[in-house]
Amino acid sequence: MRKSIATVCLSGTLTEKLTAAARAGFDGVEIFENDLLASPLAPEEIAARAADLGLTIDLYQPMRDVEAVPEDLFARTLRRARHKFGLMRRLGVGTVLVCSNVSAPALDDDDLAADQLFRLAELAEESGIRVAYEALAWGRHVSTYDHAWRIVRTAGHPALGTCLDSFHILSRGSDPKGIEEIPGEKIFFLQLADAPLMAMDVLQWSRHYRCFPGQGGFDVTGLLHHVLATGYTGPLSLEVFNDVFRQADAGRTALDGMRSLLALEESAGISALPAPVVPTGVAFAELATSDPEPAEALLTAVGFTRTARHRTKPVDLWERGEARVVLTTATRRTSTALAALGLESPAPAAAARRAEALLAPTLPKHRTADDVPLDSIAAPDGTEVLFCATRRAGTASWTDDFTFTGESHADGRLDHLALTQPWHHFDEAVLFHRAILGLRPHDTVELADPYGLFRSRALSASPSGPRLVLNLAPTPGADDRARHIAVAVDDLVTTARACHAAGAPLLPVPGNYYDDLAARFDLTEGELATYRELGILYDRDEQGGEFLHCYTGTVGQVFFEFVQRKGGYSGYGAANAPIRLAAQRR
Amino acid sequence: MRKSIATVCLSGTLTEKLTAAARAGFDGVEIFENDLLASPLAPEEIAARAADLGLTIDLYQPMRDVEAVPEDLFARTLRRARHKFGLMRRLGVGTVLVCSNVSAPALDDDDLAADQLFRLAELAEESGIRVAYEALAWGRHVSTYDHAWRIVRTAGHPALGTCLDSFHILSRGSDPKGIEEIPGEKIFFLQLADAPLMAMDVLQWSRHYRCFPGQGGFDVTGLLHHVLATGYTGPLSLEVFNDVFRQADAGRTALDGMRSLLALEESAGISALPAPVVPTGVAFAELATSDPEPAEALLTAVGFTRTARHRTKPVDLWERGEARVVLTTATRRTSTALAALGLESPAPAAAARRAEALLAPTLPKHRTADDVPLDSIAAPDGTEVLFCATRRAGTASWTDDFTFTGESHADGRLDHLALTQPWHHFDEAVLFHRAILGLRPHDTVELADPYGLFRSRALSASPSGPRLVLNLAPTPGADDRARHIAVAVDDLVTTARACHAAGAPLLPVPGNYYDDLAARFDLTEGELATYRELGILYDRDEQGGEFLHCYTGTVGQVFFEFVQRKGGYSGYGAANAPIRLAAQRR
Repeated sequence: MRKSIATVCLSGTLTEKLTAAARAGFDGVEIFENDLLASPLAPEEIAARAADLGLTIDLYQPMRDVEAVPEDLFARTLRRARHKFGLMRRLGVGTVLVCSNVSAPALDDDDLAADQLFRLAELAEESGIRVAYEALAWGRHVSTYDHAWRIVRTAGHPALGTCLDSFHILSRGSDPKGIEEIPGEKIFFLQLADAPLMAMDVLQWSRHYRCFPGQGGFDVTGLLHHVLATGYTGPLSLEVFNDVFRQADAGRTALDGMRSLLALEESAGISALPAPVVPTGVAFAELATSDPEPAEALLTAVGFTRTARHRTKPVDLWERGEARVVLTTATRRTSTALAALGLESPAPAAAARRAEALLAPTLPKHRTADDVPLDSIAAPDGTEVLFCATRRAGTASWTDDFTFTGESHADGRLDHLALTQPWHHFDEAVLFHRAILGLRPHDTVELADPYGLFRSRALSASPSGPRLVLNLAPTPGADDRARHIAVAVDDLVTTARACHAAGAPLLPVPGNYYDDLAARFDLTEGELATYRELGILYDRDEQGGEFLHCYTGTVGQVFFEFVQRKGGYSGYGAANAPIRLAAQRR
Repeated sequence: MRKSIATVCLSGTLTEKLTAAARAGFDGVEIFENDLLASPLAPEEIAARAADLGLTIDLYQPMRDVEAVPEDLFARTLRRARHKFGLMRRLGVGTVLVCSNVSAPALDDDDLAADQLFRLAELAEESGIRVAYEALAWGRHVSTYDHAWRIVRTAGHPALGTCLDSFHILSRGSDPKGIEEIPGEKIFFLQLADAPLMAMDVLQWSRHYRCFPGQGGFDVTGLLHHVLATGYTGPLSLEVFNDVFRQADAGRTALDGMRSLLALEESAGISALPAPVVPTGVAFAELATSDPEPAEALLTAVGFTRTARHRTKPVDLWERGEARVVLTTATRRTSTALAALGLESPAPAAAARRAEALLAPTLPKHRTADDVPLDSIAAPDGTEVLFCATRRAGTASWTDDFTFTGESHADGRLDHLALTQPWHHFDEAVLFHRAILGLRPHDTVELADPYGLFRSRALSASPSGPRLVLNLAPTPGADDRARHIAVAVDDLVTTARACHAAGAPLLPVPGNYYDDLAARFDLTEGELATYRELGILYDRDEQGGEFLHCYTGTVGQVFFEFVQRKGGYSGYGAANAPIRLAAQRR
């Protein structure tokens, strides 16, 4: 279907917005009135610019509080409409959006609303313009889509139809099934937005928290099904405003929006993408630093063994059981960073095709000419994601690039990777990992550290696939928060004891924490003493599942966590995060 | 009265929080449990540290979801309570806060709640501890203060009382008058917080938007009156958590909180401060730059005349009618900044005494030895605020430092100053200007610029006193937004024409704006043509008052606005701000 985006979704000047929309592959735009008013370009110049970019201008919204008002006010609206319809002809836009009246003078009179909308449609028709009437969720008397449709039907004018907006419908909790009772040709426009599920004033919710479909909690796909059932053939148009988009790069936001619509079309069965190839695990995590000694010392102290060296490059493989860390010094950065991750993929090439279809930036397959070719993409935070096969029959293995010289005798497997995200790209990252990698997002949790709240959202492929935890730092300035690699072991106490014996810098945990553990759980004195001695944190879920974990100090921007899961515990010890964060701050 | 602050109001480690609270003059603290758990200090060490700093520990809250639960759950609570009362003895804190149950197992059974609270109080009494029961606004069955009090009264235990929290009471819209029916000795604690008036989920509102009394929209003073009428003699304790405090400097936040309590005590009639001395106008705005040529060129082009030079320093006075700008080059900064403002004060010394009593940082009276002494303080954004008298009989005038060489023949007076505020100190700035300078805050408005929403709040002293507009940039990084000086003139068209003729760089306004003006207002063709020619913006209020204004380009971080108010227009042309901001961004 045709895809549009409202200019209010994008930051910058109108020209920058149009360029960003076109580059992301949109077919059209809704122009937000303030963007036009603030532009130094005349309407004809804007129309020409859009046409040059291959964009139609699909919608304009120059009037508010139009219908169901006393005649003197309506006369002023018609006067304004004459001006604005002239402007729309100059712009070449054929549909005007009229939102339900929110003002105090609005009357609760559907017949008056229908009559005035009819007269507005008469005037619009003279200019070849159609009027799309939409119920705002906070409309004074008209706040539901079926009410707006009843008024449109009563008016019965060919140039008058309705506009549906998924936010206004789903935020009110309306049942979208009734959409199917509207003839498709009377749905003049469809605006799409998602939002996190929140209990708050709907106007504030709309103004600050909308996001692209697939990033929030609404069933936008279900709504689209109902709209398609009517025979609607107009555009899918994104109308999202939130505090992040207003500050983010317009090009990035436009691509994020297009990815959202592509995934939405797939989930609604309108178009097919290369099928998702869900990764079955994490093949390796890659640390990059030109000064490897601190990382090597830490890896050694926490039980990793250097098992192999790359045949041609300054890259080592470290293993602890099945947990693999690649350490490369082919970088200019001195500080150690978690720069890439290899996902174990049942079909690496197919995974890459899906990623490309969903607009992921693809990276060169060959890092150097002799390497085993690896399909690889860049995640929104810049992390390189490689689709790998590890020692599988009939497939080139990334390990073939390495010459093995040692063996790990400890146990371990990668449990999860925690990746701090740049402030402006958190929702984008969630959609990226969900749509492209096929991971399932879990609920967002808020955690307090001594200098701010941060959001954390895990994504996983059950039951044994990779788990990623995306963390959002409290402020745009705090994007440098460390990332970590969590390794699962069979016996955390033994592992922690061995780490201590090897001089690993484990994070100290305050004694007060253990006094509190004693009050919260019926642990034995011996267990408590052991945990206290070794700096082990403890959590228990409602089903009695248990989680033991401990942390190392930080090298560069990376630290390690060791975890032991018992009895089906599936979380990440969020209750202990404030303790860990405070200890890291010290 | 004794003043306390909850450690959750302040950022950093527990030690940093205690230090900040003591330095700001607090008598005590409420220790937030996570602050204690994350501290490497043992409880006895924390108690000793607090005592060294002159702080008592007034409240601790180690348990949740205590009352009205099945017996097996309550047994666990008692077990936990035994541990925690032991901890409280080590800390030396005599009151435990118990908030009303929010959990699913809570039963709607006041008798059970009373019985279990009685038993908890029995246990507490053995440790010399009192239990303060508080209704959370989102409590499952108990969400109002009078309900909590009925349960406390039913229980009838001497070690059981109630805790009142202004947020929980006022956010629910409860009438605080009923507080007077509670005996003062049964009010064990009083927590104070304000909040902006918002329609949102009360839990989110509480967690993210609380602020100190006097910074939001609640009548905290009125509530305090009712509490005092009961004979309450406990502490006034600030319990505020919001997204800003968590990231702000703890010392600043503690001072801001203490200022809030001092102003609250004054407004409640408990204590007297030096009376406010409301300024009657702005004597001058001071620009500072080591490279004055661009500012001089701009001042000249917009009709200011250099009328005087400071007797001993590289400081010039520029005037346009009664609008005075002081330009100093005694600074190391090259870029021009609005660094100070002189307020016309009926009693400068008394104004300074009040400022000092309200913890404003005072600055040296004599900028150099020979100067006329001026009382001066630093505003939260670092702007120097000087209390001045201008050519008033019997008072030294700041103008006495200047040798006059010229005269201004144009008209003008300072209309307002717009001051961009650092992100972390917006509410602090509002309270500062309100409490210390006696200005009245107006409603907050949200404005969209191409890269974000920003908040704007005006403060004024009616009718002819100074008007300040505090603007909050969208993100912590955008604190460098330009500030501006708005000059009122009798005839804006004539002024704008003269500025154009003198080559002043007036901000260009897009033609689309004027097309829209034509649709919005019934201006004559001549008026529209003139405004379009000169780049004049126009606004009209609901009473027909009119506002004409135009802007200059920016020199350093400063620009000028010229305004003409007609028919009692009292706003600032907020509707035009997006147009202006977009033009400035280009």
